Amino acid sequence: MNTEQTGLLVSKAVHDRLGDQLQALARAAGHALRLIVAPSQRGQPLPADEQASIRLGFFSRDIMQGSSKHTPGGASRAFFDIFDAAPRAQWLHVCSAGIDNPLYRPTLARAVRLTTSSGGNAVPIAQTVVGAILCQSRGFTDWLAAQADRRWQPLAPARMARDLHEQAAVIVGLGPIGREIGRLLKAVGLTTIGVRRGAGAIPGLDRTCRPDALDELLPACDWLVLACPLTAETRGLLDARRIGLLPPRAGVVNIGRGELMDETALAAALREGRLRSAYLDVFATEPLPADSPLWDAPHTWISPHNAGASPGNDRRFTDIFLRNFMHWLNGEPFDNDATPAVRAGNNGDRS
Amino acid sequence: MNTEQTGLLVSKAVHDRLGDQLQALARAAGHALRLIVAPSQRGQPLPADEQASIRLGFFSRDIMQGSSKHTPGGASRAFFDIFDAAPRAQWLHVCSAGIDNPLYRPTLARAVRLTTSSGGNAVPIAQTVVGAILCQSRGFTDWLAAQADRRWQPLAPARMARDLHEQAAVIVGLGPIGREIGRLLKAVGLTTIGVRRGAGAIPGLDRTCRPDALDELLPACDWLVLACPLTAETRGLLDARRIGLLPPRAGVVNIGRGELMDETALAAALREGRLRSAYLDVFATEPLPADSPLWDAPHTWISPHNAGASPGNDRRFTDIFLRNFMHWLNGEPFDNDATPAVRAGNNGDRS
Repeated sequence: MNTEQTGLLVSKAVHDRLGDQLQALARAAGHALRLIVAPSQRGQPLPADEQASIRLGFFSRDIMQGSSKHTPGGASRAFFDIFDAAPRAQWLHVCSAGIDNPLYRPTLARAVRLTTSSGGNAVPIAQTVVGAILCQSRGFTDWLAAQADRRWQPLAPARMARDLHEQAAVIVGLGPIGREIGRLLKAVGLTTIGVRRGAGAIPGLDRTCRPDALDELLPACDWLVLACPLTAETRGLLDARRIGLLPPRAGVVNIGRGELMDETALAAALREGRLRSAYLDVFATEPLPADSPLWDAPHTWISPHNAGASPGNDRRFTDIFLRNFMHWLNGEPFDNDATPAVRAGNNGDRS
Repeated sequence: MNTEQTGLLVSKAVHDRLGDQLQALARAAGHALRLIVAPSQRGQPLPADEQASIRLGFFSRDIMQGSSKHTPGGASRAFFDIFDAAPRAQWLHVCSAGIDNPLYRPTLARAVRLTTSSGGNAVPIAQTVVGAILCQSRGFTDWLAAQADRRWQPLAPARMARDLHEQAAVIVGLGPIGREIGRLLKAVGLTTIGVRRGAGAIPGLDRTCRPDALDELLPACDWLVLACPLTAETRGLLDARRIGLLPPRAGVVNIGRGELMDETALAAALREGRLRSAYLDVFATEPLPADSPLWDAPHTWISPHNAGASPGNDRRFTDIFLRNFMHWLNGEPFDNDATPAVRAGNNGDRS
């Protein structure tokens, strides 16, 4: 029995909902767990003994509520005020799939393990993406525009996309989201090509390529799907030059991060008919500014960083945290370990 | 060698595109084929020997162009003026999947075999349907409404549909379209229940039920998909009473025929929030009248009897006709035989 108390920093909601379960898991593994509730606003320091005991942290979705991409909410700031000041912190689990949130920088900069919730909403996001690809390929951007005017207007031959089994999708990033997109598109009948740093076959993909082959894939691409994390290498990946390599029949999907692409160049290509359509969930600035040229770009569908919204997410995210908590209790390797030193050793697939 | 000439009534386009191939097939089977080009307008009778020689007819898609549901175009009328007056007619192949076109009535009423192109656009129609189900389940009817106002508006919890793997789809009619819808929805993870007159398991469907079980299925249904032919039994299938059996979370898809449902009752249910959403491709009156309450029913997507539009259809429809032409040459049973006496012996699945 490890009698030294391990402090776990959580939200009030997680404390109330999972506290008993967490205590039982810890007891069973011989650990003494102390749940420490983070204040919901900044400027409310914890008692010194609580602050000193913190070794673990769970940055849950309820804390993030009220945050926008560039402006974390008060509860988020308050959580990290406490966690970043915990000298014995060992492990932080976060509710996001990516690690580009600026709030994570102090954690990434020190000797603290950081694990993500990658995969928690991969299935709903992939369903959203494949729905959009099917609908835009089949003609809904034209049909819905005609419907708004009560016009009965069958597709002109020039607006019919090729049969889907003759289309090829290039999926950049093969984390849980990219893999599920590949599996579903394969079931529909598309040729699926994955782009990632690592090697090896992946179920649902006809083949995989390394990032330096991307330029050669683009001219034969019907769908380019950006499902990769934002890193120094992927920032600006879909720039004006690469947009120019895509054929006019191609559609673009971005459910990675807005900074992966040149939004102005994409809007211009859609407006000039150099691309067929687009579905975008993420943007360099969120909320997307009212004057963005993307809002009314032709044949473009926008969702507000919301592609993964689904009632089952809470349970899935909780399960990922609980699995990692048990890994910590048992001294096992974490799932979704995004600690830079650990990531350097893997293939970089993320979602 | 059968030296009596067999007249095949075709369009000018089919004559030019398939004439050589049809002649070669006939010669190889020992038949003397005479291609007879139907006039493109009424009131242009054929020479008597041509008219007398007609035993076969191919009512192809190019002839139908310019027709609407209730108003056949001039070329369609001209074709049937000739074919219906051919006393030795044996077989008519039509480009539609259904046999509810009033132009087919004289053929159905006499001793002529009638075969359809059922299945020719089943795959694109199913892709359209599954795209709409995915997009409407994931939130696009809300997102696109917000986009039109440049509003960044994530889904309210009340507008989030259940996770798709917790949803059940009831598919009425298991012809080629219904089966492909079932296969794709199963790949996504939905529970799939088929309704048909026949018995036996079908790949992609968790189970099948007979039509008299429909009422019991509706209260637990997330998606009701009408993919059956219009017959005396299916007319008005989805009436106000059955709409009332569906839960408010349910969506309705109709790619069968408009007369399968009570359009007024459906529009009212959507407007009153008694249904979540709808995707409709077919209507009792086509083009859908400008004053139909369906055009702006909430969360409703409309396509103009166009769900199957795809560049590959011409080849697929031609292949079905050619296969049946070879069956005729070889005295084999037809595919897609819709002759009433033949249909009475099968299970009635159609698309």
